[in-house]
Amino acid sequence: MAKAPQNAISPSRSEDYPQWYQEVIKAADLAENSPVRGCMVIKPWGYRLWENMQRALDDMFKATGHQNAYFPIFIPMSFLEKEAEHVEGFAKECAVVTHHRLEPDPDGGLRPAGKLEEPLIVRPTSETIIGATFAKWVQSHRDLPLLINQWANVVRWEMRTRLFLRTAEFLWQEGHTVHATAEEAIEETERMVAVYADFAENWMAMPVIVGAKTPGERFPGAVETLSIEAMMQDRKALQAGTSHFLGQNFSKAQEIMFQAESGEREFAWTTSWGVSTRLIGALIMTHSDDDGFVLPPRLAPAQVVILPIYRDDEQRAAVLEYVESLKSELQSQSYADAPVRVEIDDRDMRGGEKKWHHVKRGVPIRLEVGPKDIEKNAVFMGRRDESKSKGIDRAELVSSIGTILADMQQALFNRALKLREDNTTTITNEADFRKFFTSTDEDSIHGGFAYCHFADEESIEPLLKELKVTIRCVPRDNNDTPGTCFATGKPAEKQAIFAKAY
Amino acid sequence: MAKAPQNAISPSRSEDYPQWYQEVIKAADLAENSPVRGCMVIKPWGYRLWENMQRALDDMFKATGHQNAYFPIFIPMSFLEKEAEHVEGFAKECAVVTHHRLEPDPDGGLRPAGKLEEPLIVRPTSETIIGATFAKWVQSHRDLPLLINQWANVVRWEMRTRLFLRTAEFLWQEGHTVHATAEEAIEETERMVAVYADFAENWMAMPVIVGAKTPGERFPGAVETLSIEAMMQDRKALQAGTSHFLGQNFSKAQEIMFQAESGEREFAWTTSWGVSTRLIGALIMTHSDDDGFVLPPRLAPAQVVILPIYRDDEQRAAVLEYVESLKSELQSQSYADAPVRVEIDDRDMRGGEKKWHHVKRGVPIRLEVGPKDIEKNAVFMGRRDESKSKGIDRAELVSSIGTILADMQQALFNRALKLREDNTTTITNEADFRKFFTSTDEDSIHGGFAYCHFADEESIEPLLKELKVTIRCVPRDNNDTPGTCFATGKPAEKQAIFAKAY
Ligand SMILES: [Zn+2]
Ligand SMILES: [Zn+2]
Repeated sequence: MAKAPQNAISPSRSEDYPQWYQEVIKAADLAENSPVRGCMVIKPWGYRLWENMQRALDDMFKATGHQNAYFPIFIPMSFLEKEAEHVEGFAKECAVVTHHRLEPDPDGGLRPAGKLEEPLIVRPTSETIIGATFAKWVQSHRDLPLLINQWANVVRWEMRTRLFLRTAEFLWQEGHTVHATAEEAIEETERMVAVYADFAENWMAMPVIVGAKTPGERFPGAVETLSIEAMMQDRKALQAGTSHFLGQNFSKAQEIMFQAESGEREFAWTTSWGVSTRLIGALIMTHSDDDGFVLPPRLAPAQVVILPIYRDDEQRAAVLEYVESLKSELQSQSYADAPVRVEIDDRDMRGGEKKWHHVKRGVPIRLEVGPKDIEKNAVFMGRRDESKSKGIDRAELVSSIGTILADMQQALFNRALKLREDNTTTITNEADFRKFFTSTDEDSIHGGFAYCHFADEESIEPLLKELKVTIRCVPRDNNDTPGTCFATGKPAEKQAIFAKAY
Repeated sequence: MAKAPQNAISPSRSEDYPQWYQEVIKAADLAENSPVRGCMVIKPWGYRLWENMQRALDDMFKATGHQNAYFPIFIPMSFLEKEAEHVEGFAKECAVVTHHRLEPDPDGGLRPAGKLEEPLIVRPTSETIIGATFAKWVQSHRDLPLLINQWANVVRWEMRTRLFLRTAEFLWQEGHTVHATAEEAIEETERMVAVYADFAENWMAMPVIVGAKTPGERFPGAVETLSIEAMMQDRKALQAGTSHFLGQNFSKAQEIMFQAESGEREFAWTTSWGVSTRLIGALIMTHSDDDGFVLPPRLAPAQVVILPIYRDDEQRAAVLEYVESLKSELQSQSYADAPVRVEIDDRDMRGGEKKWHHVKRGVPIRLEVGPKDIEKNAVFMGRRDESKSKGIDRAELVSSIGTILADMQQALFNRALKLREDNTTTITNEADFRKFFTSTDEDSIHGGFAYCHFADEESIEPLLKELKVTIRCVPRDNNDTPGTCFATGKPAEKQAIFAKAY
């Protein structure tokens, strides 16, 4: 029997996907659990990735007319009480501040003191506190549309947490907008889910499906929730961003009113939309392999790392001079409208260890340069999405680096799209549905995305619960052909995507 | 009697400085109080300013070798207990999370439920939680120095709050570093206070004095605290940034240890340093005048605003075409190594109202352009730091815009420096000290910075309390001549700066 190939991450994806995910994060130095239950520490390499995501998204928000602002981290308990569905959705899992001081206790420790008259909630989302402020800002139709975004931390008291995917505290952005008409608010909701799809596909190289959530899966208080859904390598779905049309629910709860051109005072129409550090989890599960993290070039903190190789001080001087000039030349090239990001790793460390350090962290291009390469005016190049390294002429590398990075970005997208297409099917009856979502072996990966006509959410709920399947969304595109419900046989207007999900 | 000149802000600085400050913030749309006691809403114009500050500081931190990361917002109560001085300093004013759920109460409202085993503190500063993580990250001397920065929100339960200057929640950055030797940690502490001084003087146009805090004014747990101190227009001091040498206090409390080259396990040496949204308060009080906010060009979200003037649609088309091309030309110029930031304000609003809108918001350069200006190929320019507007040839404006902005930046700095120099004195006896810090009229502005030799902090405490004066710092520069204490007559090695302060 042939020896299994040696990989950097153990277990492999096929051996234990959830554990593989944790190990990739650890090997890539992205994040770790903190001493505070459910809260994570985002390490420098993970945070640089988040900064790149933030920068790209922020530019897109500004290009669509939004401005950033900042609102309080605390929400008075009474604010949550105002909107009935919203409080049901968020009261169950929140951090409650009840005191504003600590005092010595008799045992020599500390205890809470200074009880607050009204408890404060650490924001799980900010519709209520931002809405209360918007009620003051919005007076006339001339104040509309009001297009605001906030970058912030939020807290939801999750019992079972997993780094990036579900943590008690996470970082996100939340857009909050106010409009004079339902039409404009719906247009905004659609504009922003399209921005998210653009970011997911063109920056993260992660194909997504845009659709509407069914009533049971909507944001608490929303009239409609649109989302982008992606397939991970274990064929589970991951909701990567949501955009909510809130109708007049929050404007009525918070009294956001404006004087229309007619002179009448009317309730405004609001939206909210958000993506979070969960996107990093999505990125890991979309592209990484059994050697660790794989970064799409467009978001990579370093797109190229140069590893100088030498045996003595004399060689060192020559090699370092060479790689410094190579770095400058590469940086003067551009990819995706920005200078190529290049780093030199000259740490004193064994060559193999150093190479694997960058493989595991997902750097798109590794360049090894030693005295022999310099003689030939060439470098040894490894592309993170290909297993073999190869020699390449220096001038050719420099002139083609932008193309190489673009090619890798596209290759990652194509690979992810192929996985999704290979694991997507249309199902028209319950027997096939059961089979698709039931594994023959308890631990094996099974299922994928099933497109099924369905009549109503409630009647199929028991079946979905049994199989641990959820309705991901009702896709927007190519979904106008009526059919019959796969489970009940009733007439059904639309298909939904069914999948197991994160 | 001559009629007083009409100004945009009422009251004026001389009439009521604290109230003037609030009115400037309101008129410039920078921030407002929120429905949550002590927490502010930072409005878009204020947040854009903060983003510019962040960007500049972040670049400086990265240029000095630091990396960003993110740590939990919560600190377990037991972590605070570990460091005796630190807990004394921060336990008195913190937000305590005691429950993780809300449940319906019998009155139809909500009440906290799900009591936590250990209360959590919303971070007032993160030495303890970051230290606990660093204890894991640092194992060997090869892991040092560890140079980390975090951008975050923090909460201190202040009873008397004032927008930007003192709020329950504020935004800041906190640097946290670990070193193998005391010397390296002290060097880092000094390097970062120098970065703050550079930012204050060269970006904010705010002259500062670098000095060491006396023991009574140090950060709780620090061995030495360095700060930058600035003089506001009411001659009070404002501490604008601090850098702390923490010695081994936190490394011992958190067990941050490393294996030295000798093989011995040693406690590490740590530092921390921070600036916050308080800097915006400092900026307002340094440069603003009785017409509102004055922005130093280098930090201004918009450096130039163009106000097109026209009477009808025909004029409108011609004027807009002209200002668009003017905008492009100006943007192709650069100031302080970045393209000039130009905006056109074409809102439908009376000309005077629109002009004052931008005056109050502090935009450095206003350009008014109407059909007559176009005929002459000229524009009408108003500089925020000068009262008169003047006509200027278009080509001359474009070619000199960088110089004009640089000139204004320098003029603001010079004006602030002159105020400080005019209100700084050396005092050698208690009688003069009392006189300097006692106003003849209860409401008048008085005092300033007094350089005084002093022997020890405790013996002069009653005098300082009586006069509401504090020791700002022991300046680093030109402070080697011994003298005698102004209050006690005892021999004194150094001078300190005494001032009333924010
Ligand atoms: Zn609701
Ligand atoms: Zn302490």
